[in-house]
Amino acid sequence: MSNAPSNPKGTRDFLPTELSKRNYIIDILKKNFKNFGFSEIETPALEKTSTLLGKYGNEGDRLVFKILNSGEKVKKADINALNSNDLKSFSKSISEKGLRYDLTVPLARYVAQHQNNLTFPFKRFQIQTVWRADRPQHGRFQEFTQCDADVVGNNSIVQEIELIKLYDSIFSELGFNDLVFKINHRLILRGIADYIGIENNLNEFISIIDKLDKIGSDSVVDEIKQNFQDVSISKLEKLLKNKSLSFENISLLLKDSSLANKGIGDLKSIFDFISSKSLNNEIKFDLTLARGLNYYTGTILEVVSKTNTRLGSLGGGGRYDDLTSLFNMKNTSGVGISFGLDRIFILMDEKKLFPSYLKNSFDVIIINFGIKYLKEIYFFIDMLRTKNNKVLIYPDKIKLNKQLSYANKHNAEHAIIFGENEYNKNEIIVKNMIKGTQSVHDLKELNTNILQ
Amino acid sequence: MSNAPSNPKGTRDFLPTELSKRNYIIDILKKNFKNFGFSEIETPALEKTSTLLGKYGNEGDRLVFKILNSGEKVKKADINALNSNDLKSFSKSISEKGLRYDLTVPLARYVAQHQNNLTFPFKRFQIQTVWRADRPQHGRFQEFTQCDADVVGNNSIVQEIELIKLYDSIFSELGFNDLVFKINHRLILRGIADYIGIENNLNEFISIIDKLDKIGSDSVVDEIKQNFQDVSISKLEKLLKNKSLSFENISLLLKDSSLANKGIGDLKSIFDFISSKSLNNEIKFDLTLARGLNYYTGTILEVVSKTNTRLGSLGGGGRYDDLTSLFNMKNTSGVGISFGLDRIFILMDEKKLFPSYLKNSFDVIIINFGIKYLKEIYFFIDMLRTKNNKVLIYPDKIKLNKQLSYANKHNAEHAIIFGENEYNKNEIIVKNMIKGTQSVHDLKELNTNILQ
Repeated sequence: MSNAPSNPKGTRDFLPTELSKRNYIIDILKKNFKNFGFSEIETPALEKTSTLLGKYGNEGDRLVFKILNSGEKVKKADINALNSNDLKSFSKSISEKGLRYDLTVPLARYVAQHQNNLTFPFKRFQIQTVWRADRPQHGRFQEFTQCDADVVGNNSIVQEIELIKLYDSIFSELGFNDLVFKINHRLILRGIADYIGIENNLNEFISIIDKLDKIGSDSVVDEIKQNFQDVSISKLEKLLKNKSLSFENISLLLKDSSLANKGIGDLKSIFDFISSKSLNNEIKFDLTLARGLNYYTGTILEVVSKTNTRLGSLGGGGRYDDLTSLFNMKNTSGVGISFGLDRIFILMDEKKLFPSYLKNSFDVIIINFGIKYLKEIYFFIDMLRTKNNKVLIYPDKIKLNKQLSYANKHNAEHAIIFGENEYNKNEIIVKNMIKGTQSVHDLKELNTNILQ
Repeated sequence: MSNAPSNPKGTRDFLPTELSKRNYIIDILKKNFKNFGFSEIETPALEKTSTLLGKYGNEGDRLVFKILNSGEKVKKADINALNSNDLKSFSKSISEKGLRYDLTVPLARYVAQHQNNLTFPFKRFQIQTVWRADRPQHGRFQEFTQCDADVVGNNSIVQEIELIKLYDSIFSELGFNDLVFKINHRLILRGIADYIGIENNLNEFISIIDKLDKIGSDSVVDEIKQNFQDVSISKLEKLLKNKSLSFENISLLLKDSSLANKGIGDLKSIFDFISSKSLNNEIKFDLTLARGLNYYTGTILEVVSKTNTRLGSLGGGGRYDDLTSLFNMKNTSGVGISFGLDRIFILMDEKKLFPSYLKNSFDVIIINFGIKYLKEIYFFIDMLRTKNNKVLIYPDKIKLNKQLSYANKHNAEHAIIFGENEYNKNEIIVKNMIKGTQSVHDLKELNTNILQ
């Protein structure tokens, strides 16, 4: 059956119930983003190659989906490059556009391009698809949705405080109260790199620290020993092997580092404002939180579940200075968070946090006894729909049982019965499919309250 | 400034106000689709080349955006094809996937693929981006949103009736009451082709009739004379030059055509059920409505504005038998309508149908007098947001006027003032930015009603 129709590997079709669950999450995200003063924007799926390439490292460049130039333009294919195995140049010769790889570089491009039409600080959220030409695997998709909220053009700690409150507000509304918001600061990590004597290799240091959760502190110490010669091992071991090292102790340890002090000051302001007491979830300083990406420069944070730790983070974010400098707009600090839609979905399914009504494609079925009867009660169908009841008219006059069975498959709550008997008596029967009860109503006195 | 960042030609960035207007339309579409018993689905942006190509004609094939194979796979480039100018084969050798060109072929693929997990009749709506490698022009985009509602697996006329009611319900809620829903039937057009003696060239005939609005009846008659030799010109002229030819007259004219009679019967059932009287807009039989696409087989309809005719149709649709036969699933009738989002947007802007609140990025600004004061009233900010007020905290403690000016730029309605004075007096000031009034409230008795 290789001829059977199928979607490409790494992509997904969404069936109605699955999509209504996804949209339930997205709607709660959107509502809260708006309530926190963020405005929605959208950028195109297609971006110029010059916007995309060189922003995500070599591996990233490789994973950008490239669009083949159309029409005659493919004639410019650089055959020499192909023959000499320079696939990058060959691709470049026949492609000028690619698919959006994330929402951050497009945001930077957007802000730089439209700076004169925006008011700063610019608070935007964006929920759109991104594409990566990754090898498709179980749970890893080539096409997935990113949900980001960022503030561009402001470096007040109020933004960090609000983003943590936003996380708590959204996750609470989704039904979570057992998450941990881990928080750290890049300047503290820089302070530590100074402290143990490897300040010139910060990015390497961070990328090793970032593996702590996966490989454990012994392996991290080993890896650092191997990579750095002059590192003060005793200091490092003291730090890393004591994962519960408190915020207070770190402040004492790094009190002479001016960099670290800025970071510590930021976190202090945050903790002074919000504590776990004022949240439905927990907030926790975590010295070992590094977050891989190079562009973070200030606060970094990450959301994890206490009960399902193997799932990875449900969201993360941080502050990055000079977001837009790639596009010739200087001194524009940004801070943002993102939500891992697919992981949130998995965890909510596991914990049965989705309301059961999401399984209903419609609430009410109108049983079809012939078009004459439908016409007679169409005024009432109009009324039900105006009051936002989801009403489906069964299209064919078939056996009552078959129509009711269709309604049951869709978890419809009510069936409305109006056939010849009812027509003659000027009444309508409302059947509650869940409770198994039914009630009779005068056709002239119908109102939407009869659906109880 | 060719180095200035920009989005590709034919694509769009959406600024907040524009997007909130688009989403206002989309939200009304979604709500009504659901109230009429349609369920939302999504399909991937990427489809296999085998799914896309050969479905839209040669021109369509050319306009499908092709994705370059990644990594080593581009080595399979067919250089011979390139050298012999066979660009189609060359493209095929380096591309296995393309971007979705419309939502209809993906729907057919989806239904065939998931038929065992769907209950028929299957009523789905889908609002997603599609891509066409068309030459970008003013108002014509390479990337745009289609909004479709279709019923698959049922051929009852109830579906047609419901789709017209759905059109009326949606356009009414958007604020339109001066639209015309033109309706015709492909079997009537076939009856006419028979009647004038060109039944073997139906598609050509339809594609010429389809131009009537653009080129006028004289040109259409000329074109038909040129294309068909045996056509009965007098009959044709009688038909075409009398655009007001009524449904009743056509029924009489074609009373011997069994095909036409089925079409006339369908339309009669529709008109018996709904008349312009029962709609906010007008429904009208239009013999000259042809709609270009070959796949229609039954009712066809189209929505146009009475006041802005040059804009073209705001939506259209019809019945197509054997939607899924392309994917080896037989006897599956479909009927659907679509909405032209960009044109609806333009017309609503023209007619000022968008509510003014769409210009607000937020409703309330919290004036910043320092983090100490923000902390003190954060409980109230929480309360406002829980009641779905859009609240923005100004992030920096700068001059009051500058903060208010930021709020004005975003059309915020209220400003909340809580500085040292207010702190000492245990009160809060609410400023109504629209009316220019302000009121003072006890900090201990705050509730969301104070925003009046």
